[in-house]
Amino acid sequence: MRIDAGTVWADVVKIREAAPLVHNITNYVVMNSTANALLALGASPVMAHAEEEVEDMVAIAGALVINVGTLSASWIRSMHRAARRAQAAKVPIVLDPVGAGATPYRTQTVHELIAAVPPTILRGNASEINAIVAAEARTKGVDSTAPAESAIDAARRLSRAHSCVVCISGATDYAVEGEEVAQVHNGHPMMPRVTGLGCTASALCGAFVAVSPSALAAAAHAMAVMGIAGEMAAEKAGGPGTLQLYFLDALYNLSEADIARRLRAGG
Amino acid sequence: MRIDAGTVWADVVKIREAAPLVHNITNYVVMNSTANALLALGASPVMAHAEEEVEDMVAIAGALVINVGTLSASWIRSMHRAARRAQAAKVPIVLDPVGAGATPYRTQTVHELIAAVPPTILRGNASEINAIVAAEARTKGVDSTAPAESAIDAARRLSRAHSCVVCISGATDYAVEGEEVAQVHNGHPMMPRVTGLGCTASALCGAFVAVSPSALAAAAHAMAVMGIAGEMAAEKAGGPGTLQLYFLDALYNLSEADIARRLRAGG
Amino acid sequence: MRIDAGTVWADVVKIREAAPLVHNITNYVVMNSTANALLALGASPVMAHAEEEVEDMVAIAGALVINVGTLSASWIRSMHRAARRAQAAKVPIVLDPVGAGATPYRTQTVHELIAAVPPTILRGNASEINAIVAAEARTKGVDSTAPAESAIDAARRLSRAHSCVVCISGATDYAVEGEEVAQVHNGHPMMPRVTGLGCTASALCGAFVAVSPSALAAAAHAMAVMGIAGEMAAEKAGGPGTLQLYFLDALYNLSEADIARRLRAGG
Repeated sequence: MRIDAGTVWADVVKIREAAPLVHNITNYVVMNSTANALLALGASPVMAHAEEEVEDMVAIAGALVINVGTLSASWIRSMHRAARRAQAAKVPIVLDPVGAGATPYRTQTVHELIAAVPPTILRGNASEINAIVAAEARTKGVDSTAPAESAIDAARRLSRAHSCVVCISGATDYAVEGEEVAQVHNGHPMMPRVTGLGCTASALCGAFVAVSPSALAAAAHAMAVMGIAGEMAAEKAGGPGTLQLYFLDALYNLSEADIARRLRAGG
Repeated sequence: MRIDAGTVWADVVKIREAAPLVHNITNYVVMNSTANALLALGASPVMAHAEEEVEDMVAIAGALVINVGTLSASWIRSMHRAARRAQAAKVPIVLDPVGAGATPYRTQTVHELIAAVPPTILRGNASEINAIVAAEARTKGVDSTAPAESAIDAARRLSRAHSCVVCISGATDYAVEGEEVAQVHNGHPMMPRVTGLGCTASALCGAFVAVSPSALAAAAHAMAVMGIAGEMAAEKAGGPGTLQLYFLDALYNLSEADIARRLRAGG
Repeated sequence: MRIDAGTVWADVVKIREAAPLVHNITNYVVMNSTANALLALGASPVMAHAEEEVEDMVAIAGALVINVGTLSASWIRSMHRAARRAQAAKVPIVLDPVGAGATPYRTQTVHELIAAVPPTILRGNASEINAIVAAEARTKGVDSTAPAESAIDAARRLSRAHSCVVCISGATDYAVEGEEVAQVHNGHPMMPRVTGLGCTASALCGAFVAVSPSALAAAAHAMAVMGIAGEMAAEKAGGPGTLQLYFLDALYNLSEADIARRLRAGG
C-alpha cells in the first residue's frame, strides 16, 4: 500500500467538502475531545447511544465509530444494534477496543462485537490488539505496555479472520490488511500524555473511511493526519495541556504543504 | 425589544454578584465545557441527572437547563420530573432540542417535554426549530443545515403555542416572543467548529434568566455575551482548539467597555 | 506532620517512575480533565464503572478514586463493589463527596459509602465535609460556601470515627488524621473558576497514595502539587480557560526547583 502526500491531502479535501456525519458510540472521557477533533478536521460528529435511536442515526451517517472505553450493558446492546444496521446499510464501522485485556468483561465484549459484525477498521494499541488474539495477554489499564511492532502478527491474523483492516498505533503506526502493511512514522512522544488521542485516531478513521473507497488507505491517512497534526502541535506546546488545543488548531489549519513537508510513510 | 450595552452589562453584573445555581441535565459531550462557561461567567453550575435527586436539586436552583444531546430512557424520566418540579417552584426552564429532526426518538422526546411543561426559553439552531414544528423536516446530525432566518416563522408559532421565548442561533441570532423579535449580530464563523457552543449558549440563557425578569431579554443578552466573547476569542485564536479556551477567558474578563464597543443588536 | 519540598518531590518521582494505575469511578463532567491531570503527572488513569468489571479493574490498580459528582443507582452499586474489592486487596481508596449536603440523595450515598468501606482519604470542600457530619448543613450545589477552616472540627471527627485521612480543600488546604494536621498554603483564587479542579485534587490523592506508605503525606503532597501547578499556571493564564491547560503543562513540567521555590506548607 503506497500512501503519499497527494493521497492524504485528497482525502482531507473530500472530508472538508462533504463534512460526513460520523456517528460515535464512544466513551465518556473522550466525547468532547473526539467531537472537537472531527469538527476541526471538517467532519460532522454526532454522539448517540440510546437503543431507541442508534439505528436511525447510523442510517443517516457516513461512518459508525464504536469505542468500548466506558462500557455498560445497555451501551453494549446499542453497539450491537448500531453495528447490525450499519452492516445492512453498508455504512463502514470502526471499532476501538479500549482496554481489551485489562478485564475479562472488556475482552469478551470486544470478541462478541467482532464476531457479530466484523468492523471495517479495528484500531487499537499493541496491548489491545495482542489481547484480542491471545486470551492470556494482559493489558495495564488503557495504556499500551508494548511497542506497535509486537502486534503485527496478531493484526495479520485478525485481518484475515475477519476481512478487516487492523490499525496499530504507536511510535510507528501500522495499517494491516492481510499481507499488505502501510506504515506511518509521524507523531510525537508527548501525544500519549493527552487522554484519548487514540480514541481520536479511531474517530478520524471514521471520517476518512466515510469518504474513501479503501479502508486501508483511510486508516493510514487518518494516522498520518494524527501524527502530522501532533508534530505541529508539539512544536508550539509547553506540555500536554496546550498540546491538546494546538492539535485541534493544527487539524483545522492543515494544508497540503504541511503534509508534503512532514509525511513519513512507507509500505 | 430593545437591548443595548447597558441592559446586557447590568445582567452580567447581576450574575457575577448572585452566582445563581444553574442545574443542568445535559449531554455527556458538553458537561465540562458548559460548566466551565457558567463558572467563567460567574454562575454556579451543577450537573445532576438521577431521578432520585433532580427534584431536590432544581428546588434550590435559579434555573434548570435541559439538553437532549445524549438521551436515554432514565434521563428522559429525570428531565420530566425536574421540569415539573421547576414549574411548581417557578424556576425558569431552558430547553435545548439538540438534534431534533435527526431521529424520531429525539423529535418525539422534545415534543413530549414541551407538551408536558413548556420551557421558558427554547434555544436551538434553525434545523432543530424547524424540525420541531414540521415533522417532515430532516436534520443532519446535530449541526444546522439552514440559516437562522429560515426558522423565524417556526419560532413565532412555537412561541405563541407554548407562551415561551424561542431563540434561534446562527450567524445572526434571533430571540422571538410572539411578535417581538430581538436580533444579535455578534459572533464568529469559527464558533461552529467548537463542539457544544450551542449548548453553552443554552446554559448561559439559564444563567441570565435566573437573574432577569424578562425571558426575552435574558435570551438576547445570553446570545450577545456568547457572540462578543466568541469575537474576542477569535481575535487571539489560531483555530478552534485555542478558540475554546480564549472564549472562557473572554467570558471571565468581559467588561462593560467590551460590550459597548462590540454589541451589534437590533429589534 | 512535616511536609517539605524533599518529601513532595520524592513522591512525584515515584509516580513518574511507577506510573501507577489509578482506577476512577468518577463523574461525567471531569472524566477528561481528571484523566489528563493524572497523565500529565505521570500516572496511568482508567475510568471504568460497569458492575461487571469494576472488581477486576480495581484488583490491578494502585488506587481507587470514587467521586459522587453525577450519581445514579447502578453507579452507586459499582462504587460499593469496587470499594469492597479494594479493601480486600488492600488497594487504597479516595472518596470525593461532591455536592454532599446539596440533596439528601448525595448525602445519604456518601454516608453509605463511608459506612460500608471507610476510605483511606476523604477529600472535599468545607461545605461537603461539614455536611457529612451535620445532617442539617446545606450546600449550594457543588461549590463551597464556607472557608476550609470551618470544617476542621468536622474533619477531625470523621478521621477518628473512620480511621481515615480527611482532606479539606480551600484557600488553605488541610489534611487531617486524628490530631495531626498538615496545611498547604499554595494555590490561586482563579482555580475555583475551573470546573472539577477539586475532583482533580482527589484523583491526584489517588496517584500519591498509590506510591506512599502514609495517607496523610499523600493527601498533603497532592494538595501541594495542585496548588503549585495552579500558581504556575495562573502566572501565564489570561483567565480560567487557559488556566486549565497551563495547569496540565505545569504538572507535566513540575521540577524539584519549582517545588522548593514555591511550597508553603506547615504542620
